[in-house]
Amino acid sequence: MSAIKLVIIGGVAAGASCAARARRLSESAHITLIERGPDVSFANCGLPYFIGGEIKQRDALAVQTPALLKATLNLEVRTSTEAVAIDRSGKRVQLSNLTTGHTEWIDYDKLVLAPGALPVRPALPGMDDPRIFTLRSLSDMDRIKAAAATAARVVVIGAGFIGLEMTEQLARLGKQVSLVELTKQVLPQLDAVLTGLLEDELRRQGVALILGDGIDGFSHAGGLTCRLKSGRTLEADLVVLSMGVRPDTALARDADLALHPSGHIRVNGFMQTSNPDIYAAGDAVAVEDFVSHEACAVPLGGPANRQGRLVADHIFRPTQTRPYPGALGTAIVRVFGVAAGITGWSEKRLQAAGRVYRSVLVNAHHHASYYPEAKLLLLKLLWAPDTGRILGAQVSGAAGVDKRLDVLATALAGELTIEDLAQLELAYAPPFGAAKDIVNLAGFAACNTRDGLVSPVEALPDDPHVQILDVRPPALVKSHPVPRREVINIPLGALRERCHELDRQRPVVTVCALGKTSYFAARILAQNGFQVRSLTGGIRAHYDPHTPIKPPTP
Amino acid sequence: MSAIKLVIIGGVAAGASCAARARRLSESAHITLIERGPDVSFANCGLPYFIGGEIKQRDALAVQTPALLKATLNLEVRTSTEAVAIDRSGKRVQLSNLTTGHTEWIDYDKLVLAPGALPVRPALPGMDDPRIFTLRSLSDMDRIKAAAATAARVVVIGAGFIGLEMTEQLARLGKQVSLVELTKQVLPQLDAVLTGLLEDELRRQGVALILGDGIDGFSHAGGLTCRLKSGRTLEADLVVLSMGVRPDTALARDADLALHPSGHIRVNGFMQTSNPDIYAAGDAVAVEDFVSHEACAVPLGGPANRQGRLVADHIFRPTQTRPYPGALGTAIVRVFGVAAGITGWSEKRLQAAGRVYRSVLVNAHHHASYYPEAKLLLLKLLWAPDTGRILGAQVSGAAGVDKRLDVLATALAGELTIEDLAQLELAYAPPFGAAKDIVNLAGFAACNTRDGLVSPVEALPDDPHVQILDVRPPALVKSHPVPRREVINIPLGALRERCHELDRQRPVVTVCALGKTSYFAARILAQNGFQVRSLTGGIRAHYDPHTPIKPPTP
Repeated sequence: MSAIKLVIIGGVAAGASCAARARRLSESAHITLIERGPDVSFANCGLPYFIGGEIKQRDALAVQTPALLKATLNLEVRTSTEAVAIDRSGKRVQLSNLTTGHTEWIDYDKLVLAPGALPVRPALPGMDDPRIFTLRSLSDMDRIKAAAATAARVVVIGAGFIGLEMTEQLARLGKQVSLVELTKQVLPQLDAVLTGLLEDELRRQGVALILGDGIDGFSHAGGLTCRLKSGRTLEADLVVLSMGVRPDTALARDADLALHPSGHIRVNGFMQTSNPDIYAAGDAVAVEDFVSHEACAVPLGGPANRQGRLVADHIFRPTQTRPYPGALGTAIVRVFGVAAGITGWSEKRLQAAGRVYRSVLVNAHHHASYYPEAKLLLLKLLWAPDTGRILGAQVSGAAGVDKRLDVLATALAGELTIEDLAQLELAYAPPFGAAKDIVNLAGFAACNTRDGLVSPVEALPDDPHVQILDVRPPALVKSHPVPRREVINIPLGALRERCHELDRQRPVVTVCALGKTSYFAARILAQNGFQVRSLTGGIRAHYDPHTPIKPPTP
Repeated sequence: MSAIKLVIIGGVAAGASCAARARRLSESAHITLIERGPDVSFANCGLPYFIGGEIKQRDALAVQTPALLKATLNLEVRTSTEAVAIDRSGKRVQLSNLTTGHTEWIDYDKLVLAPGALPVRPALPGMDDPRIFTLRSLSDMDRIKAAAATAARVVVIGAGFIGLEMTEQLARLGKQVSLVELTKQVLPQLDAVLTGLLEDELRRQGVALILGDGIDGFSHAGGLTCRLKSGRTLEADLVVLSMGVRPDTALARDADLALHPSGHIRVNGFMQTSNPDIYAAGDAVAVEDFVSHEACAVPLGGPANRQGRLVADHIFRPTQTRPYPGALGTAIVRVFGVAAGITGWSEKRLQAAGRVYRSVLVNAHHHASYYPEAKLLLLKLLWAPDTGRILGAQVSGAAGVDKRLDVLATALAGELTIEDLAQLELAYAPPFGAAKDIVNLAGFAACNTRDGLVSPVEALPDDPHVQILDVRPPALVKSHPVPRREVINIPLGALRERCHELDRQRPVVTVCALGKTSYFAARILAQNGFQVRSLTGGIRAHYDPHTPIKPPTP
């Protein structure tokens, strides 16, 4: 193995991580890193923030240069070079220098494909307009930044992670931004109940949010006009398409490597393709999903880096390498003052797959409520009723979202149950947490649901036979009523003596601001013989992400 | 069970949580909450922050009042009432009203002891001075706040969690604070390598830090003088003793309940004492340690709350209750602009117990290094070499300490290994994390250590035979040399061509700012036949928590 020839195609996250790890494991290997673009190992997750001016130094994003990689890692780096063919039986790959046009074949013992993904650019009328951009590389970034300098009106198509980041950053520059999203919510990866806070924040920041509509084409008689599926038109000086990515797997396909129907490269747990001397990693592959064990694509920087590293481990230390543990799909996005994210599966994904699950919604402050600047978080927890194991979690809020996602991702990876979450011993001091963290509370709520102590409902029923009991203080019910609902108002503190005001023959749904007091009320009523359910997540989750929890001070 | 009489002694964290949970489980139970002090269910972790003025409303700390608890939970609350005796065979407890002196016996079916702990007040000369305080209750807080109004010079004795919080808050008020600690570091629960950052921050903020010295007595000829063991004296207008707590278990002892030699009440996994109808929870008990399965005391708010809740569960739903999972001892403290904390065991504790372990130190930024305001974290990871299981972790830094502690506490609870940490899929967007989070990096470093890819050393050897190789850029070696050390300086990028400058017959220890480049260098040297080790954690961990990682710009 000492003079192994390792050729890596793709020099950003997975490819660069693989090369670096390979060198640590073997000083003698010949390692060649091929990159079609002009840059290697750049920080592509940072591109929006340079456009928006939060990151001020372009150099900060250029993590490595070919010269630096030569000096520190003794890599042979070829940029602006495309791998155009693989000769599997001859174990060689054909390269084309995009500057000179020169082509040559180079030999490999092990080949690593890390070509990444390409932005989706649908074939729509008018797509050739130079004011329509996608963002993937440093040069894409430079072009958008230059165009943004003179643009006033921006249209962003697609409200996924990149679309939201671009919207935030372009609005930060003072642009009039319209954000168009085909589904009825931003961040379609999440359940809609989590994204209300983001949508509210976008509107507060002056973004024109157009949900349930998509791009149909562009016309440019004079200005650039975006035509939406609804017939609506938007004038734009700059359009950013953020409609997702597709794996860049033409080379793998031409080499007859096995692909998934989605076009992603098939790999085993050690990232080997159907040819064991050819590995693949990063956005171009599908890996095993941690929850379902089926193939899934997670085109994100963290997994790409770790997969690239794993490839090098398996090449140089095969017997000591543990297979990739499966993807959780953990992701987060900041939108101005709020953030939201997910780990594991959403409810809509569980539903679509026909899986059995249960869920709760919990609101709680991100640190001790009595300590200044406590912000409310909303957490949705999904679990398997047979084992109690966590299937997924989503969090939104103004602070501490990342911490809870990371705790829940760790819990998911450790196959923890709702009981385990209830008992987690997290770090508590008033500036940092609470004696009962929202993760504990979610565990409590889930166990209570499992044990039948409470029956959560996700929406207030339309059936007029059901009594809606609002247990907030009367002043709050008056100032912030449940929208479009007749309710009976008995505050919690008076419920034991006034529960005779409710009709015992009719079901009750209890409601409050956060879903906590309504649970308390439901316990009282259940033990008094009522058939009762509680609106999980409260008014805050379902109607108004800013509803107050205390009556206005007079 | 429907008309069960439940008596709970102690109305703060464990007691109040137990009462609240009990009422959710049983509307019919008679629940009596006995509290010696005037307040129930107050936020005792918030007391320092009201003294320092960060928390402005005293009401914010008074979480509940007896009237509120009556209205919402139908509890009978008796404050300023002491439980003075337990008649186990008669199942009754004798109460003494501290205001009226009236005593009476009340019956119980189940009794819960949540008496908490008392501040340690050693019997030293001059201890009766009214300017010497401990902090445990709202009235302690009021007295200290009143005394602080006119005090200029404050001495805090003991640099544990409360001592550090009080130091920070009193310094915040402009007091001249001296902090005296018997051990040679602040926060003695942690390994010393983690506390350098805190000590540096305390000194920067003007705190006089006196380590390795203890209080010997007080004298008050005129002003109040603190006499230290070293003979040194400190003048003070106000002294805060924060020398730890001892369990308040006189009642349990008198009732012949089994105690540990430490004085803590013995309980089983369901928090039952040696009398199964008497439970105990909170600061007065010892629970099972998660790592060693031995008894340990964790006098913290989070565990107390969850233990109190568990007691109620076991009383009302015994067959559905899972035993307490064991304590991790997760804790955190903020000191001005930095924070530090621990979960699981420290190295010193592992050493004292004679356990086999390994450790690494890792420095990394709290979010993507290219995104503004990235702050360095230091993480120490300890694991069992036979299983790879995590035994403990400690973190310090200016941002993101709490998140990593919570992830590591969750990993510990899930019995995750160093391999699992390497592969954790945490939330990454530039404002929130990094493609390879410091927790991943710690997993990588631990696996590399396990696999013999690197041999970490915790200190530079004194042996002059060992070559110390500093692999930082020469400008940095010149501006920030390794203190008191002769080094050979070969920057990483030149090491392959210049390694002949080193004596191949003598061992090498590589060193750099953070411990990462020195690892890279160690890999090159090891593969070139050198006997080499790398200083884990770098100069930053061992010599200067603010050492730069790039040469000064000219």
